[in-house]
Amino acid sequence: MPDEFELIARYFTRPVRQAVLGVGDDCALLHCGPGRQLAISTDMLVAGRHFFPDADPFLLGHKCLAVNLSDLAACGARPLAFSLALALPQADDAWLEPFSKGLLALADAHGCELIGGDTTRGPLTICITVFGEVPADASAYPVPTQAMLRSGAHVGDDVYVSGSLGDAALALRAMQGTCALPARLLHGARARLEQPTPRVALGVALRGIASACADISDGLMGDLGHILERSGFGARVDVDKVLPLLATRQAYGGGAAQFDSDLGARTALQCVLAGGDDYELVFTAPQSQQGILNALSDRLQLPLTRIGTIEAAPGLRLVDARGNTVPQNFAAFDHFAAVPGLP
Amino acid sequence: MPDEFELIARYFTRPVRQAVLGVGDDCALLHCGPGRQLAISTDMLVAGRHFFPDADPFLLGHKCLAVNLSDLAACGARPLAFSLALALPQADDAWLEPFSKGLLALADAHGCELIGGDTTRGPLTICITVFGEVPADASAYPVPTQAMLRSGAHVGDDVYVSGSLGDAALALRAMQGTCALPARLLHGARARLEQPTPRVALGVALRGIASACADISDGLMGDLGHILERSGFGARVDVDKVLPLLATRQAYGGGAAQFDSDLGARTALQCVLAGGDDYELVFTAPQSQQGILNALSDRLQLPLTRIGTIEAAPGLRLVDARGNTVPQNFAAFDHFAAVPGLP
Repeated sequence: MPDEFELIARYFTRPVRQAVLGVGDDCALLHCGPGRQLAISTDMLVAGRHFFPDADPFLLGHKCLAVNLSDLAACGARPLAFSLALALPQADDAWLEPFSKGLLALADAHGCELIGGDTTRGPLTICITVFGEVPADASAYPVPTQAMLRSGAHVGDDVYVSGSLGDAALALRAMQGTCALPARLLHGARARLEQPTPRVALGVALRGIASACADISDGLMGDLGHILERSGFGARVDVDKVLPLLATRQAYGGGAAQFDSDLGARTALQCVLAGGDDYELVFTAPQSQQGILNALSDRLQLPLTRIGTIEAAPGLRLVDARGNTVPQNFAAFDHFAAVPGLP
Repeated sequence: MPDEFELIARYFTRPVRQAVLGVGDDCALLHCGPGRQLAISTDMLVAGRHFFPDADPFLLGHKCLAVNLSDLAACGARPLAFSLALALPQADDAWLEPFSKGLLALADAHGCELIGGDTTRGPLTICITVFGEVPADASAYPVPTQAMLRSGAHVGDDVYVSGSLGDAALALRAMQGTCALPARLLHGARARLEQPTPRVALGVALRGIASACADISDGLMGDLGHILERSGFGARVDVDKVLPLLATRQAYGGGAAQFDSDLGARTALQCVLAGGDDYELVFTAPQSQQGILNALSDRLQLPLTRIGTIEAAPGLRLVDARGNTVPQNFAAFDHFAAVPGLP
């Protein structure tokens, strides 16, 4: 069975004529007046697939806009507006009121206006299309934009990720009963799953600094993989830099070693590398930007961790601190693969 | 239970600050460079609700873009691009290939590019957001746009509809077995249901001529009702002008009288007035535009039928040729009401 990305490539990817950028990046770009472009992204969330049907509607309202704002962040666009299409099993005030509150609270926090949409009866499905703006750049080649693209990485660039990784995936496992987390730690991890923070300010600040960027929605390996594929290069990623990004593991009673002993080092690695639902940014930047990125990290009070390097040879190589290859077979999240614990 | 429009008003309608126009019209409007605005509309189609789950995928691909282009037509916008979010029970080439062909054939016919989207597994659901452009108009009040809005009708304006009405609804009844249509007539009526023609060229041509416009997706009464509500007036509609718009009735063996005898005059009236799925335009224009509209009808080879007049008194009054009131209680299509024959 073809996976999601094969499907898109086979049936829905064609060269654009009028648009600045079409299918294949975090956002599409449309001309929008002199020096200005509109960044556009769409995400559809389906009950039982992307969230539990009984998910807290306030948190769900937050999350379904957050995942779209995360796509704007990935290309460095400032949020402007969004449209909302909603299929509901029934018109239910007790659900709609908190849903709209969670949605509009995050929208207000980012100055992102709800400008239209559609409501209908059907299996609970939420589809948001978000609009942001980025400056054009007539001198940029091949795409005349200041937006960060997946295709701009160069050999020798450092690879960075923002924030923490894998806690959302760990929370999902705990909620499905496949691993046991102390209640105190589950609470924090659930917040990462249910109320992710789109890295909008970081994305805007990275324009002109990062050479390529993507948001991590389907897992680090998969989303960094998109950057490598579009840029035509490979990367070496240091496992010992990545594993500490699992915040729950660091906070575990007894620390990382105890976590690995109780829950398995492989669980940690899977969550960090292929967990998905992180909504952090993975980006590349020339080594010369290291000082600027450290200062940006301080200003935003957000860790920016250097996890690896872009190399000429294609593929993604995981290595440990001594440079030894770590075997791995972590697939990115495929929306047409079976989801454990979800129908 | 609140209906669709109450829901939108209660939870999702707020004044816009940055956008030119927000929730409540066929399209939203965003600033997009000097003298230019982006018109945006979203429609979500759900299997079992808006189409039969076994619907021909080529025709479905056509229809799901057509209903969005129809919203652009209603505000007089020229199509530019669209994004597609698709939930599918499984990744099925035999479905996706014809679906994408039907979709992209209509897109190409209108120079409307697919620029992005999302695919995921879930109950078959199609959500399209379409982008078009309209000229701004700094002198227009209260909305500085040349886009046609629902709110611009004036007392004394004529009310027009394009093309034919009600045949899609009649086809649906025949396919559900609630009325018997000869095969020859069912074929033509089904084409109206399954492959509607968005009135894009008409919409663009009506800018500066029509005072208000909406597309007829939920039935003439409902969509004209939106114009009346937003404009703050009422209308008188002549039943004897409207009934002949049901093309199947005119083409019936023995003509309209035989149709009314075999299938019921009330069936005809219900389909024409409240059938839905027509994707024609209903618009208002000053009487002084009558000659221009006749010429436009000739040029586009598309009937533009004058069906009534805007009046000061609120509400929609159906009258016969002698001016007598025709009793009616035809509701507009409510997306949260039960649909006969669909789950």
